[in-house]
Amino acid sequence: MTDDRLARLEDRVQRLEDELAIVRLVASYGPLVDAGEADAVADLWAEDGTYDVEGWRMTSREDVRAMVLSDGHQHLIEGGCSHFLGPVTVTVDGDSAVAVCESILVRHRDGGFSVRRAGANHFHLGRGADGWRIKDRRTRALDGSAEARDLLAKGARGETW
Amino acid sequence: MTDDRLARLEDRVQRLEDELAIVRLVASYGPLVDAGEADAVADLWAEDGTYDVEGWRMTSREDVRAMVLSDGHQHLIEGGCSHFLGPVTVTVDGDSAVAVCESILVRHRDGGFSVRRAGANHFHLGRGADGWRIKDRRTRALDGSAEARDLLAKGARGETW
Amino acid sequence: MTDDRLARLEDRVQRLEDELAIVRLVASYGPLVDAGEADAVADLWAEDGTYDVEGWRMTSREDVRAMVLSDGHQHLIEGGCSHFLGPVTVTVDGDSAVAVCESILVRHRDGGFSVRRAGANHFHLGRGADGWRIKDRRTRALDGSAEARDLLAKGARGETW
Repeated sequence: MTDDRLARLEDRVQRLEDELAIVRLVASYGPLVDAGEADAVADLWAEDGTYDVEGWRMTSREDVRAMVLSDGHQHLIEGGCSHFLGPVTVTVDGDSAVAVCESILVRHRDGGFSVRRAGANHFHLGRGADGWRIKDRRTRALDGSAEARDLLAKGARGETW
Repeated sequence: MTDDRLARLEDRVQRLEDELAIVRLVASYGPLVDAGEADAVADLWAEDGTYDVEGWRMTSREDVRAMVLSDGHQHLIEGGCSHFLGPVTVTVDGDSAVAVCESILVRHRDGGFSVRRAGANHFHLGRGADGWRIKDRRTRALDGSAEARDLLAKGARGETW
Repeated sequence: MTDDRLARLEDRVQRLEDELAIVRLVASYGPLVDAGEADAVADLWAEDGTYDVEGWRMTSREDVRAMVLSDGHQHLIEGGCSHFLGPVTVTVDGDSAVAVCESILVRHRDGGFSVRRAGANHFHLGRGADGWRIKDRRTRALDGSAEARDLLAKGARGETW
């Protein structure tokens, strides 16, 4: 009886740990990418993880690392920017998970700050030997496109695309 | 002895689950409302839940659903927008809870994005047969009004209004 | 055997409680400071806690309280503003913890809202008799400065500065 109760409680704690691990992983993306920590950003992805962001498609951890080190991204962070992600909604299913959040990109230019973009972010994650990692991330501008809205809807329902 | 320890631990896990369930519920509002998922947004509220937002008072789940389907909201999401809610502070008391967060509304217009509003959000939630739902939500623009500031203060103290 | 399993589970639950307590503490800063709740804001800090924000260095709970009551801050909140903090990444190590998040300051002026600043926030927290409190917080504008980026990197790695 006690062993059964304990086993059920262990399962509940595992689910909380999984959810919080994914919340923490996604929350760390903004600070890491704005700091220019290329290795640490790349390590949020699985080795063969993908990141598809408005026409730029990365298909490996190495691609993500190269994006952080790219002239375009370095120019952004040297001028000052915040990849500001909102709170994430996570749906865990065993060793797989889906997470969704919105984001804004704030840039510093000419002594002032402004919002340059609002985006929809859909994450498909997997649990590997080293814990949770992003398998596929897709980001689209919230400019009224059906695709961006579909990412939000699917993400909130815990569905992949 | 072990049974007592187990029972205390079950209570602690229940409190964590309650808090995370409410965090997840509030976090899902933005993605769902910006996706235009009227039924799913409405389902965040109790059947007779209310949503009072700067002069617009909804008093049922059906009212919330109608708001998402309204011309005004459809116009917003077809142009592109983000109802961007910040991290929520939750106070749980048995089957009742209070949550508070700030929010910004970002709109896409004329090819650019801008912040159109910042708001104070106070949620009163209840646990029903299907889990936590919003009983009353009140949102006010952070334009210096005493009411908006009062919502934040009450929410952070875990008080209803 | 069961006692060992129970003890291990208690440790895991304690870690979840610690992380969520810190998430909640940081999340409450924005609502409290924008409400002008000087005592409650001050109580987020340890008695001798520090807050170093772009040239303004506070070195006690009383200093933080005085900042909220200052003409500068009162002018901000009477006009309308949101100290909007993003989701926090927390690293707990026993009775000490590091947390990092980005933030934006949104102000209401002349009937409109705009982003006035984006910032990097690094928190060093300690567990005292009354729970977790901020020992040291450092905030820098994300204007491209190496210091702001360093705060983000150190915070995400769970390091103090």
